[in-house]
Amino acid sequence: MKLTFAPQEDAAAGGPIGVLCFSGDLPTSVAGFARERGHDVFIIAFRGFASRAVEGFPHTWVKLGQLGRLFRVMRGRSIRRIVIVGALTRPHLRDLSLDWKGLRDIPSILRTLRAGGDDSVLRSAVRYFEDHGLQVMAVSDVAPELLAAEGQLGAIAPDAKELSNLRIGMGVLDALSSFDAGQACVVLDGRPVAIEGAEGTDGMIVRVSELRANGRLRVSGPRGVLVKAAKRGQDLRVDLPTIGPRTIELAAKAQLAGVAIEAGKSLIAEREACLALADRLGLFVLGVARG
Amino acid sequence: MKLTFAPQEDAAAGGPIGVLCFSGDLPTSVAGFARERGHDVFIIAFRGFASRAVEGFPHTWVKLGQLGRLFRVMRGRSIRRIVIVGALTRPHLRDLSLDWKGLRDIPSILRTLRAGGDDSVLRSAVRYFEDHGLQVMAVSDVAPELLAAEGQLGAIAPDAKELSNLRIGMGVLDALSSFDAGQACVVLDGRPVAIEGAEGTDGMIVRVSELRANGRLRVSGPRGVLVKAAKRGQDLRVDLPTIGPRTIELAAKAQLAGVAIEAGKSLIAEREACLALADRLGLFVLGVARG
Repeated sequence: MKLTFAPQEDAAAGGPIGVLCFSGDLPTSVAGFARERGHDVFIIAFRGFASRAVEGFPHTWVKLGQLGRLFRVMRGRSIRRIVIVGALTRPHLRDLSLDWKGLRDIPSILRTLRAGGDDSVLRSAVRYFEDHGLQVMAVSDVAPELLAAEGQLGAIAPDAKELSNLRIGMGVLDALSSFDAGQACVVLDGRPVAIEGAEGTDGMIVRVSELRANGRLRVSGPRGVLVKAAKRGQDLRVDLPTIGPRTIELAAKAQLAGVAIEAGKSLIAEREACLALADRLGLFVLGVARG
Repeated sequence: MKLTFAPQEDAAAGGPIGVLCFSGDLPTSVAGFARERGHDVFIIAFRGFASRAVEGFPHTWVKLGQLGRLFRVMRGRSIRRIVIVGALTRPHLRDLSLDWKGLRDIPSILRTLRAGGDDSVLRSAVRYFEDHGLQVMAVSDVAPELLAAEGQLGAIAPDAKELSNLRIGMGVLDALSSFDAGQACVVLDGRPVAIEGAEGTDGMIVRVSELRANGRLRVSGPRGVLVKAAKRGQDLRVDLPTIGPRTIELAAKAQLAGVAIEAGKSLIAEREACLALADRLGLFVLGVARG
């Protein structure tokens, strides 16, 4: 990676970085790496989403919708910079709670929910926090270690055929980049057999398993590559393309030969475990720089 | 439609048109319209695929793989022009049979099966017949009545929002046109929520139903449009985009507002029934000319 970082500037900016944590292991990884880089971090954990592992850091729990409480916590701790991390899985009703500020502001944040893709909701949340004087940072700013490097990342190398599939897949994602569609596809024997829409990357990979099982894809053996990249112009502060052990597991079930993600603009959650799993299951993992 | 036809030339070309019939109602519609236009037709019905309705025409049954028999029939009837119609659903083993010529030639036709999409198999079949001195015609040559006209085809008109979805969908299909991917997508509230890969159009529409049922698409009421078009440069002799009553049924189950197909380059199977069903279920059907 050829990025430059200046964590020393942190002190000047003042106050800890608020890590707004949703689902998965990524939030605590981000907080951990940020702390190792000398950042002061404070975790705001969303109940019903964030894992208990956040309790290893200075933290507080809030419910989704408690915007008044959220801003009081941040003011009280002099938090002026935040990073939003983790998956926004569907919450249980018991984990939702609206305080007065939530009641007032959330409708405008959610107004985009019907209109557009997930992206627009997240963009709208970023704008909301910025309007409240907060600086919204990207994971790549506070924990660049988590970004995928360029080149072969695991023990297994792709063959020429899969490199050609990979190029086709990058072409498909480029072509779709201006649409609010998915950011992943599976290319097998030169053909894009699955393209991500609203079902998400996992759902798309499962589809490839089904297509192989029901005979619509009449191929056997490990073949095909999952290609995942950021949309051009995507706001990486809210939606970095991410793979993790589950991605590898599903790709192996779909009998893919490997996984390619965009170098410098994608995250590997549980990186060690993820790459070890890929090695064990015989999948290559590639970080690909984009022209 | 502003196409010109000269069925009178038929006599000069000599011999009947061989209609190679696979699954569905389309083959007999094509044969029927061709006959109404004054063409002499002879049906070669593939057992296990073609419907019994073919028996209303001069016909013979062959099994898939009996290439020797197929060419003997065509020579015996002076068939020099053929049209290939109907869906190539997965055959039962009992409906396959290889004669000597089949045994010799089919491997080369199928060699493309693993390598590419359905398109390449069909292209390869067309080339095979052409190499044997046959002229392969398009449905649009022999039964242009079956092509979708431009404009509103049913009783229901799309609103401005769905027209905008439709334009986005055409953009997605344009962007993907150079890839051997699907030729359909569903756009809902400005967002391409499903893009066709190897699962086929029906599978893709069913996915939209599932995404609405499982809450990944949080919208209610009839919204969204299925857009289906030919790939640019697609050989329309083998794979005209086709919708039929089942398409409308699935689109209604997915609570779409309507269906748009490319005018002059798509077929509506069971046209009357199809449009009546769309009217009854409240879906618009549009034929769209492409720039």
